[in-house]
Amino acid sequence: MSQFLKVKTAAEVLSILEGINPLPRERVPLELACGRRLASDITAAESVPNFARATMDGYAVRSRDTFGASESLPALLERTGEVVMGEATDLAVAPGKAVEVPTGGMLPDGADAVVMIEYVSKLDNTMIEISRPAAPGENVLKTGDDIALGEVVLRRGAMLRPQDIGVLAALGIVEVEVFRVARVALISTGDEIVPVEIHPLPPGKVRDINSLSLAAQIESAGARVGMRQKVCDRLEDLVSTCREAIMNHDVVVLSGGSSVGVRDYTAQVLAGLPKSELLVHGVAIRPGKPTIFGRAGGALFWGLPGQPVSALITCRAFVLPSLLKLHGATETELTYKRSIGAILNQQLPSVHGRTDYVPVALTRSGQGATGASPIFGKSGAISILARADGYVVIPEHVEGLDAGTEVAVFLF
Amino acid sequence: MSQFLKVKTAAEVLSILEGINPLPRERVPLELACGRRLASDITAAESVPNFARATMDGYAVRSRDTFGASESLPALLERTGEVVMGEATDLAVAPGKAVEVPTGGMLPDGADAVVMIEYVSKLDNTMIEISRPAAPGENVLKTGDDIALGEVVLRRGAMLRPQDIGVLAALGIVEVEVFRVARVALISTGDEIVPVEIHPLPPGKVRDINSLSLAAQIESAGARVGMRQKVCDRLEDLVSTCREAIMNHDVVVLSGGSSVGVRDYTAQVLAGLPKSELLVHGVAIRPGKPTIFGRAGGALFWGLPGQPVSALITCRAFVLPSLLKLHGATETELTYKRSIGAILNQQLPSVHGRTDYVPVALTRSGQGATGASPIFGKSGAISILARADGYVVIPEHVEGLDAGTEVAVFLF
Repeated sequence: MSQFLKVKTAAEVLSILEGINPLPRERVPLELACGRRLASDITAAESVPNFARATMDGYAVRSRDTFGASESLPALLERTGEVVMGEATDLAVAPGKAVEVPTGGMLPDGADAVVMIEYVSKLDNTMIEISRPAAPGENVLKTGDDIALGEVVLRRGAMLRPQDIGVLAALGIVEVEVFRVARVALISTGDEIVPVEIHPLPPGKVRDINSLSLAAQIESAGARVGMRQKVCDRLEDLVSTCREAIMNHDVVVLSGGSSVGVRDYTAQVLAGLPKSELLVHGVAIRPGKPTIFGRAGGALFWGLPGQPVSALITCRAFVLPSLLKLHGATETELTYKRSIGAILNQQLPSVHGRTDYVPVALTRSGQGATGASPIFGKSGAISILARADGYVVIPEHVEGLDAGTEVAVFLF
Repeated sequence: MSQFLKVKTAAEVLSILEGINPLPRERVPLELACGRRLASDITAAESVPNFARATMDGYAVRSRDTFGASESLPALLERTGEVVMGEATDLAVAPGKAVEVPTGGMLPDGADAVVMIEYVSKLDNTMIEISRPAAPGENVLKTGDDIALGEVVLRRGAMLRPQDIGVLAALGIVEVEVFRVARVALISTGDEIVPVEIHPLPPGKVRDINSLSLAAQIESAGARVGMRQKVCDRLEDLVSTCREAIMNHDVVVLSGGSSVGVRDYTAQVLAGLPKSELLVHGVAIRPGKPTIFGRAGGALFWGLPGQPVSALITCRAFVLPSLLKLHGATETELTYKRSIGAILNQQLPSVHGRTDYVPVALTRSGQGATGASPIFGKSGAISILARADGYVVIPEHVEGLDAGTEVAVFLF
């Protein structure tokens, strides 16, 4: 494997992933669209609101009729009627008149402001006193004030959140075009791997942790795990299982077998698949150096280290961004949206010339800023990850990070 | 409604929510457990690893045989065999001997360290030279080094993340006891509300945004929306629908109709339900003052403002924490886990004596710290929320926040 010497940096791998095209689009009903990504811009086909309305309980007035009003010198107006909630009104507000209106009620013609009920006293059945002036437009949402007709409200690639669902509902949109979610095949290999349910664990064996932990991580990213299989460490078995997997999955993730040892079959497995292309053979990070990426048939092909901690970190660092691209995310989000800023709580030593991915726990420091506490322990201990919320990257050309440094925490 | 004057502070409401007991427990297979909360502590019934193993490809040695070794004066050892991956070994390392071992392979008896392959040269078929000393325990994970027998690895109330699923799989656990997730009934009311699909929107009407946006928010929190219904603004209809809803749901969320106007039926609806109790009638926040909380039958009962922005913010601020409690979260998480720290990008004015919930967008400032940019606009505009990632709370006794203040951002 001479390519192994040409390991890529993490940034080079992410830049290769930028070239991944989204999956085909499909239409889904709005109630199933939260978490999905838009396949096209959404343009408002109507105004929101589509009539001027009151945003407070009160009286619709011509604002100039209230100018100069005060508690000692209130404005005197005649109440000429009431707007009924949820109904169109044919009432109009003439000079010197006022119409009672509930929050959300339609603003009558002629009115340009609403005086809050708190500043109004009824003198009798028709006359009211107003003790504060209303500015033009006060307590009124005019037609299109929220969303203007023709405005682009949501962009292609945006992930729909509950409030975006609200915007689409406000526009009367009941179905949206989104990118299909990825179907992922998870294959574990290694002669030492046994199913999780085996009791007692035979000497020398380890349980198939990755099938479950990687599946959980991939499903948390919104993709679907369509196949989860353990395959023996035999090249022909791996090739035939993967050949089948690429036929009805968008991504194949093979964990185990990609260290440089005698059993390094992963790159050979990829080479044995139809229309295959090896794009990354090793990444200059720790842990996770033996990570492999390529394409086979129409699918993406990932080879992750079998060691469970390395597998989870490389899946988070590279496989999830590749899923984001398949799901239609825009490139900025790969580096930004999925991490949060934090202040490192203690010094973090590193080795010059190596990019380290260090598990951290989030803490809350002082008033509100988020702190990141490194979790140290024996390399490869899965219990370290159970205490971690994410990881911090120490770049290659840095010999460590001081306490107090601002860092990006990539959440698991 | 004399209780309306006794509005509670947001902190008082959250402290009432602390008293909510979790739902009954149920057993789920590990592959469906991610995102669920443990109903009991998990204690390790075996050690991980359950045999001493190598964490690097190399040679198992007695560390003292390598003391003083250097490139100019290497230690000379006899290679007596090789550990096969995934198999128990009966090889032992005697003084002056070494056994080849792969990453993850079983450490032979007698050895206490592994020398990385990089520091070993083969002289012939039996003799090897070692150019660096190995410390005792180096590149070895001893029995129980990751997880010790009897150790509590995960606590009751912990939400299972992918890495926790990995820990459980490592222990051979294939099923866990978790709290049941809440079934939520969503009821919208208001004579002005029409179904989302109505085109064109009749004058004076608004679409039923809350049914969809609140459902998305509640499902994002891991609960199940079992019923979504629009009911007319008639007391008897609302009571009979809610009476049915509390029979097979854990939570009823009624949106609309809880302002102080003539159509304030929500508290009356609650009073009309069996075994009902009004616990909160109004909260001193903006937006969201008319929020109602109580119990009816065995269910929690929420009355949210009908205005979509107020409904989303109060659902996030109060309904989601109540779901967290039903799902078994511990109390600290209500205030901490669901928010992140950020630095306010610009000054935020407020009014003394009122708690304001202000929508903000997250930005990335400088090296990594997260910034929060307030989003201003007409009150009640749903498009503001579509530009927001969460909200910042400006407490009652503060007249505003300066730019540069550390704030907690509660994510939507």
